[in-house]
Amino acid sequence: MKANRMEAFSDGVLAIIITIMVLEFKVPEGHDWKALVELGPKILSYIFSFVYVGIYWNNHHHLLHMVRTMNGRLMWLNLLLLFWLSLVPFTTAWMGESYFAATPTALYGFILLLAALSYWLLQRAIINQHSSDSSFILAMGKDWKGRLSPLLYLIAALTAYVSPWISGFFFVLVAVVWFVPDKRIEQALRGH
Amino acid sequence: MKANRMEAFSDGVLAIIITIMVLEFKVPEGHDWKALVELGPKILSYIFSFVYVGIYWNNHHHLLHMVRTMNGRLMWLNLLLLFWLSLVPFTTAWMGESYFAATPTALYGFILLLAALSYWLLQRAIINQHSSDSSFILAMGKDWKGRLSPLLYLIAALTAYVSPWISGFFFVLVAVVWFVPDKRIEQALRGH
Amino acid sequence: MKANRMEAFSDGVLAIIITIMVLEFKVPEGHDWKALVELGPKILSYIFSFVYVGIYWNNHHHLLHMVRTMNGRLMWLNLLLLFWLSLVPFTTAWMGESYFAATPTALYGFILLLAALSYWLLQRAIINQHSSDSSFILAMGKDWKGRLSPLLYLIAALTAYVSPWISGFFFVLVAVVWFVPDKRIEQALRGH
Amino acid sequence: MKANRMEAFSDGVLAIIITIMVLEFKVPEGHDWKALVELGPKILSYIFSFVYVGIYWNNHHHLLHMVRTMNGRLMWLNLLLLFWLSLVPFTTAWMGESYFAATPTALYGFILLLAALSYWLLQRAIINQHSSDSSFILAMGKDWKGRLSPLLYLIAALTAYVSPWISGFFFVLVAVVWFVPDKRIEQALRGH
Repeated sequence: MKANRMEAFSDGVLAIIITIMVLEFKVPEGHDWKALVELGPKILSYIFSFVYVGIYWNNHHHLLHMVRTMNGRLMWLNLLLLFWLSLVPFTTAWMGESYFAATPTALYGFILLLAALSYWLLQRAIINQHSSDSSFILAMGKDWKGRLSPLLYLIAALTAYVSPWISGFFFVLVAVVWFVPDKRIEQALRGH
Repeated sequence: MKANRMEAFSDGVLAIIITIMVLEFKVPEGHDWKALVELGPKILSYIFSFVYVGIYWNNHHHLLHMVRTMNGRLMWLNLLLLFWLSLVPFTTAWMGESYFAATPTALYGFILLLAALSYWLLQRAIINQHSSDSSFILAMGKDWKGRLSPLLYLIAALTAYVSPWISGFFFVLVAVVWFVPDKRIEQALRGH
Repeated sequence: MKANRMEAFSDGVLAIIITIMVLEFKVPEGHDWKALVELGPKILSYIFSFVYVGIYWNNHHHLLHMVRTMNGRLMWLNLLLLFWLSLVPFTTAWMGESYFAATPTALYGFILLLAALSYWLLQRAIINQHSSDSSFILAMGKDWKGRLSPLLYLIAALTAYVSPWISGFFFVLVAVVWFVPDKRIEQALRGH
Repeated sequence: MKANRMEAFSDGVLAIIITIMVLEFKVPEGHDWKALVELGPKILSYIFSFVYVGIYWNNHHHLLHMVRTMNGRLMWLNLLLLFWLSLVPFTTAWMGESYFAATPTALYGFILLLAALSYWLLQRAIINQHSSDSSFILAMGKDWKGRLSPLLYLIAALTAYVSPWISGFFFVLVAVVWFVPDKRIEQALRGH
């Protein structure tokens, strides 16, 4: 009873989340390039979400490889993470449709913040299955990305009320920080 | 010819069910927090359904591990369960859109009741593949959760005509009862 | 390079087909049981399609186990089958919305006929990979179900112009015929 | 940590892309064959996209078998490919709804061009994991299909402004070229 079915289920949910966001691109009335311009903010917000869900899929994949024994707690924490991520298509569409208005952008950030916190809880529960001197724990020690990104999401959410450009800067920053997959766990896996 | 392809197919269907429910959250007209308020009952009914489908996914996962030989009967009982669960996105949307009006809430409960009964039939068919003194049967002996939840769904459906609060109380009760995954089967699996 | 990835992809497509059909159930205006009545034909046509796709999933699953070597031909025949099945959500919705009017019901039958013929081509291509005295071929010898169902779909499609009841009778007949999974191949598999 | 989870995730995304395109077929008002005529261009553009995504699924499947070690770069290149392909349902719907008007058809070609270029980058990254005298590299040597198809997509996109028939000819040409799965890699796999 390993984590592989949880992995398959999570993969399915993430694949659907990333794909149904496209259903928000309604076919425009006109048939020229100008008709695409109004889709601009929607496409931009789609790119953001595609990258974030892609990052989650990749890190989640690494993380689940470290699960020692599956139990109800891990399953519920994983479902909590999927719950927040399942709201991303809605917040993506609202943010895009509103041309990055303050409140939709803030909500977008808050949902990602809650997803990041759920991920962190899931990670903690998995860490607790390892002894404190395992290669996995040592590798995770300097988990600055995991600590930084909820903070960046919070700042991005709050600065949405100042300017969408400042908020957008912090959203891009999170993506850049996570762009490279989690080398730490990769190394620990190799250590195994 | 084990249960693993049935498991994969069921996982796919459950992952899609849990995710397409979000498509019911239409992007609101306004761009402020107030615009989200009208989504309140929809989000609440989504949370309910997310938890129920999550519970089904988890228990289903445990149950299928006990399958000895796949046959047509198991397959059709499994499809019956998936059929009722596939109606959950519709009843979730109707219940939320109606602000938990009596009939939509009752229908929501009846569909969950029919899913619970199908699950029970599937469980019985799998139990019949084991001898009566197997650790699986002994562990299943006190299946009070499986007997209680159809009853609770029925009460929740009927009390919808009295008050959405009473009905909601019973819906929450089912979720609480099942929150912890099925330790009985987990133990039996370990006994194997 | 066995058939397992083709199986996984087909499972994914079939799981999505079976689930997105529910998206056609628009939330009704009213909040009473009467409001559900207009959904009646849609639900009936959904039940039909759910059963047919369920039958395809099951038989497909048995069939792919007999693949000896994957090649481009099998892949394209499988995609052809999935193509016709992918049109089922549309024809299901049209048939339901039209209260089983003649042309939508006939189209529903024709699409299922084309799916059945594609299935038959896929089956033939797999049969050709086996020697004529293999247990698989012997078991397939009396493939009366596979020959009967395209005929029944054709009759159901044509009689739609006479009466929806006669047409419906033949649609039910196909479901009944296939209800029991393909024992022939099950036996051949056991013979291996 | 092989490519199999990336494969499963990609399969999921491709299966969803291929299936949600059907959601664009709105149920027509009328109930006769004439009502289907207006769906004609949509169905035609759906057939195009179904074939292209089918080709990608098949070649992708062959390609991923050649991955030696998974890393962040491969994962991001794969996500880039999936990103462009995820836009196909939108461009398919726009092209069909516009009766193959110039700009929607050109956009359709450009998105497929970008997908083809991403595929080519992914292929290059995987080739770099092999020594230059491996059977895989030798087999890939005459990669005329991979070089030809971006060019054909570009021509199809540009000629959309001349005539939809010329553009359509080049779209059909790509499909024909790729119809037979990549024998080169199949042979290399057998060589292993």
